[in-house]
Amino acid sequence: MLHGILISARDGTLAVGAALLCAVSAQAQSDPLPSWNDTEPKAAIVAFVEKVTTEDTPDFVPESERIAVFDNDGTLWTEQPMYVQLAFALDRVKSMAFEHPEWKDTQPFKAVLEGDMKALAAAGEKGLLEIIAATHAGMTSDEFQKIASDWIGTVRDPRFKRPYTELVYQPMLELLAYLRANGFKTFIVSGGGIELMRPWTERVYGIPPEQVIGSSIKTQFEMRGDVPILMRLPQVNFIDDKAGKPVAINEKIGRRPIAAFGNSDGDLEMLQWTTLGGSTPRFGLIVHHTDAEREYAYDRKTEFGRLDQALDVAPINGWTVVDMKGDWKQIFPEK
Amino acid sequence: MLHGILISARDGTLAVGAALLCAVSAQAQSDPLPSWNDTEPKAAIVAFVEKVTTEDTPDFVPESERIAVFDNDGTLWTEQPMYVQLAFALDRVKSMAFEHPEWKDTQPFKAVLEGDMKALAAAGEKGLLEIIAATHAGMTSDEFQKIASDWIGTVRDPRFKRPYTELVYQPMLELLAYLRANGFKTFIVSGGGIELMRPWTERVYGIPPEQVIGSSIKTQFEMRGDVPILMRLPQVNFIDDKAGKPVAINEKIGRRPIAAFGNSDGDLEMLQWTTLGGSTPRFGLIVHHTDAEREYAYDRKTEFGRLDQALDVAPINGWTVVDMKGDWKQIFPEK
Repeated sequence: MLHGILISARDGTLAVGAALLCAVSAQAQSDPLPSWNDTEPKAAIVAFVEKVTTEDTPDFVPESERIAVFDNDGTLWTEQPMYVQLAFALDRVKSMAFEHPEWKDTQPFKAVLEGDMKALAAAGEKGLLEIIAATHAGMTSDEFQKIASDWIGTVRDPRFKRPYTELVYQPMLELLAYLRANGFKTFIVSGGGIELMRPWTERVYGIPPEQVIGSSIKTQFEMRGDVPILMRLPQVNFIDDKAGKPVAINEKIGRRPIAAFGNSDGDLEMLQWTTLGGSTPRFGLIVHHTDAEREYAYDRKTEFGRLDQALDVAPINGWTVVDMKGDWKQIFPEK
Repeated sequence: MLHGILISARDGTLAVGAALLCAVSAQAQSDPLPSWNDTEPKAAIVAFVEKVTTEDTPDFVPESERIAVFDNDGTLWTEQPMYVQLAFALDRVKSMAFEHPEWKDTQPFKAVLEGDMKALAAAGEKGLLEIIAATHAGMTSDEFQKIASDWIGTVRDPRFKRPYTELVYQPMLELLAYLRANGFKTFIVSGGGIELMRPWTERVYGIPPEQVIGSSIKTQFEMRGDVPILMRLPQVNFIDDKAGKPVAINEKIGRRPIAAFGNSDGDLEMLQWTTLGGSTPRFGLIVHHTDAEREYAYDRKTEFGRLDQALDVAPINGWTVVDMKGDWKQIFPEK
């Protein structure tokens, strides 16, 4: 169509053609979701946002109630070949090993040090909790924040050779910005550890620490001489996954979101809580990993980010399912 | 001084006098803390805010880090003759009694129904927890929110004959607005139950639900047919008091506040966490209840809002102590 306008300029309609060109170009420039193909998910997002932001209509939602919640792993950044949190824990075991010579002969640490993922898997949840306790506790919250921040700033993903904070989804960054430009307040509600996200979510996603909800271990306040500290204890405080997500949303946000974005069965209850039974329009979206070439392809059978039940009920509940391969022009931001 | 300017107008300096008058009047109008007397606390607050908001100085704090935390009971609203939460629980026992004929003969409910505060006190913390379980649990979060909202909207304080939401401190409302006008984000960090505050904090304090931190009971997500609910369980989830306050601040805000406002020993650790050991300027303030005529006078010996240790260490830590009688022109908002 643009091409047609340009060639018509030869018969004296140059001015009109130029004006139209400008209009088309302005529209292209102002597309808030340029990395999304013009397929159903983009149309559904835009339709929802226009519906709840159009004043004097029954579907209008006041700004204070425009709460949008986003899972992190697999929804905003990549979760393969393993959760970034797990990569962090394994790296920590390796870098702490010289202080723990006994780990050479003790599972699950031996498995980590030898890169024996089969033995690690065999250690199960109990083994994983031992690793978390050893690597995430026993220091102050300030100390841990520095460790996490330093690690995330230096480590590279083995396949893409980029920092994990660059393996975030460009279309989702655009979506976050688009929602905020329309008066939404955006929150992360992740199964991941809260203190591993907070050092970088504001810079990367535009989401400040106070809008990041996640799993956590217990901390204890102490005065160390004149200096107050929060000591990290080797005990789980809260697992922000599955049915824990709506619980945390209610406790920490105190309002029911009107939009939820996830990618796995861990987000099922958050999607249900957000979209079912409310009196205003609601929006639910699932990112389906279908692009083995540009990222990964997985759903029902995967160790990390299993998507099975939520995929089955998505059409029944009217949730939008993003086919990463077909619906996204670009996966990661440009280098 | 204003008077002096006015009488000098007789000798032809009328225009100058009028101009000065306007300037003085504009200054008075623009005083952001008009209910505060011009005593030390007001000067300290203004000096702190000017310090952290003046760019290109070593004390400047970027807007995103201007976090201010406020206790609620006794700091933002009245906590005598008993915490509003306790008044709510006792009222709930009375209104639920017809469904529980056995309460007539069972402590601690019998004590509540007979108004026997001595027997109630004798039931201790165990008795109180039984009352909380009976009155705050066993319904959905939506149902509880409606109960709390209806109650707070209709009940009147016995002494002042006003809704509790009008027994908030006018000088503190001005302080909240002043801080926000200077780029601060204001949070409540209260020992009170979170769900009893959230229905009204935005309207009364300008603090939205997601910036209200408080005590809570456990909730559980369930699908009731097609409708997702959060069921309130008779189990304590978190007590947001004393050493719990810094723990909750770290977990829920994820940044160290630069200003904290409290009134009792329950706020001691929050004040310590905020003001001690940070690298930027910090501000701590304690509201000291010294005005039996206009409100209440209490500190070291009271059932509710005991202020003892925090009062002792306030001068050592450089915390500002507000003498309600001397420092506040007005206690409650005009009717």
